Amino acid sequence: MTHEDAELAELTAVAHAVADAARVETLAHFRRPDLTADSKTEDFDPVTVADKGAERAMREVLAARRPDDGILGEEEARVDGSTGLTWVIDPIDGTRGYVAGAPTWGVLIALSNADGPIFGIVDQPYIGERFYGGPDRAYMTGPLGERPMRVRSTRTLEEAILFTTFPEVGTPEEGAAFHRVAAKAKLTRYGTDCYAYALLAAGHVDLVIEAGLAPYDIHAPIAVIQAAGGVVTNWEGGPAHDGGRALAAATPELHRLALDLINS
Amino acid sequence: MTHEDAELAELTAVAHAVADAARVETLAHFRRPDLTADSKTEDFDPVTVADKGAERAMREVLAARRPDDGILGEEEARVDGSTGLTWVIDPIDGTRGYVAGAPTWGVLIALSNADGPIFGIVDQPYIGERFYGGPDRAYMTGPLGERPMRVRSTRTLEEAILFTTFPEVGTPEEGAAFHRVAAKAKLTRYGTDCYAYALLAAGHVDLVIEAGLAPYDIHAPIAVIQAAGGVVTNWEGGPAHDGGRALAAATPELHRLALDLINS
Repeated sequence: MTHEDAELAELTAVAHAVADAARVETLAHFRRPDLTADSKTEDFDPVTVADKGAERAMREVLAARRPDDGILGEEEARVDGSTGLTWVIDPIDGTRGYVAGAPTWGVLIALSNADGPIFGIVDQPYIGERFYGGPDRAYMTGPLGERPMRVRSTRTLEEAILFTTFPEVGTPEEGAAFHRVAAKAKLTRYGTDCYAYALLAAGHVDLVIEAGLAPYDIHAPIAVIQAAGGVVTNWEGGPAHDGGRALAAATPELHRLALDLINS
Repeated sequence: MTHEDAELAELTAVAHAVADAARVETLAHFRRPDLTADSKTEDFDPVTVADKGAERAMREVLAARRPDDGILGEEEARVDGSTGLTWVIDPIDGTRGYVAGAPTWGVLIALSNADGPIFGIVDQPYIGERFYGGPDRAYMTGPLGERPMRVRSTRTLEEAILFTTFPEVGTPEEGAAFHRVAAKAKLTRYGTDCYAYALLAAGHVDLVIEAGLAPYDIHAPIAVIQAAGGVVTNWEGGPAHDGGRALAAATPELHRLALDLINS
C-alpha cells in the first residue's frame, strides 16, 4: 500500500466513523412522537434536536481523529483547517422528510479539497443503507448486502427517469427549466431529497435536477456519483460544489441534453 | 378465545403469509439491472415481472389456505368466493417508484366483506417494514422493532403534514382541489405511493389526498388507518373502498376541514 493509499484508507475510515456517529443520533429521534421542530425561517424549515445532536456527534469524531482538517456543516460555525482538507457535512439532508417519518432523508459526509469533493457518503440510517465512494470506486451496503455501484448507460431523455425534491424546484424560472426536461423524460418523481442522488449513483435513476442547494447538500452526492461514473455540474455546466443549482446525470450524453434544455 | 377471535386470528395469519410470499417475489427483482417494464397504457405504467410473479405467489397462498374466499387483484382476473370474504391485493402499489429503486412502494393486502375492509397490511419488503391492523388495533414492525400504531391528534390544517403521490393528483379540477388544501397545510410532500397511508396510520403524517385509485389501491390503507384511529372517505365523505378519490385524515376534525376545502 502506498502512502497515498494508506492516507485515503484512513480518511475513508474516519468518514464511516462520522456516519456511524450520525446514525446513532438521528435514529434516536426519528419517528419519536415528542420530536419538536423549531422553524429556522418563515417557511417551514424544521431544525430538530436530531440535526443539532447529530452534527455535534459528527464534529466530535472529527475533532478526535482529524483535528487539523476544516469543517463546513449546516448547524454550526465553519472550522478552518490547516491541511487543505475540509469535511463538508449535513447531519440530516431532508429534514422535512425526516419530521414526516419518510425514509428518504440522509446523512451527508464529504471530504473535499479546494477543487471539490474527493470522497463522499450518503447514509440512510433507518433503512440501514450506505452509499459511498471516491475518487474512482463506489459501493453501497444495505438490506440486500454490499455491492459496487455504477450509473446506468441511459443516453436519451425519452429513456430517462428524473427526480427532484419539490415540484416547484426553486424560482418560477428554475421550475420552468426543470419542467422542460420533465416534459421529455420517461418518468418524473418527487420527494426524495438526497436519496435521489444515491439512486442515480446506484444505477436506478438517470437525472436529478435541483436548485437552491447549499454546499453541504451537494458535496457528498458529487463524490458518490462521480465515483460511480456519473456527471454532476451546476446549470451552467461548471463545478457544482458551491451549491445553488445542480444537474446530475448518468452519462455525459444525457447531461448535455438536459443542460441544453435547461438553458433553452 | 371465542370462535370469532379464532377465525380472525387465522385470517390474520393468512394475510401475513400472503405478505411473506409477496416479499420474496418483489425483492427477487427489486433494483435488478435486468428488470424490464412493459407498458400497460400510453403513459408510462410499468408492469414488471415482479408484479405478476408476486400476485401469482399471493394467490397460491390463498388458494391453499382460503379456497372459498374471493380474490380481487391488480394483475389477474377476479375470483368470486362463497364465504362473503374477498382478498383485495395489489402486489406492488407504486410500480413507478419500484422501477426507480425508491423504497416507498408497497404490497397491499386487505380482507374485505361487502361493507369494506376488515383487516389490512401495507408491507414494504426492502425496508422490512409491515404496517397492519384491523378491525380495531394496528401495529407496525420494522428496523426499530414492533409497536402499536396510533394516528396523531392534529385538528387544524395549519399543523397538518399532507402527502400525495403526484403533484398533478388527477384531473385539473382534482389537482385544484388538492392544492386548496396544500396551500393551508404546514407541509406538503410528494412521491410516496401507499407508504403515505402507512405513515398516517403510524402517526407521522396527518392527511393523504389522492385521485384515480383502484379498489385494490385503497382497501388495505383503509383497514390500517381506521384500525389506528383515523378516517378515510372518498371526496364526497362516503365510503372510499370503491376507489376513485380518497381523503385520509388523522382526526374527524381535520377530515372535515379538508373535505370542506376540497369541495369549496
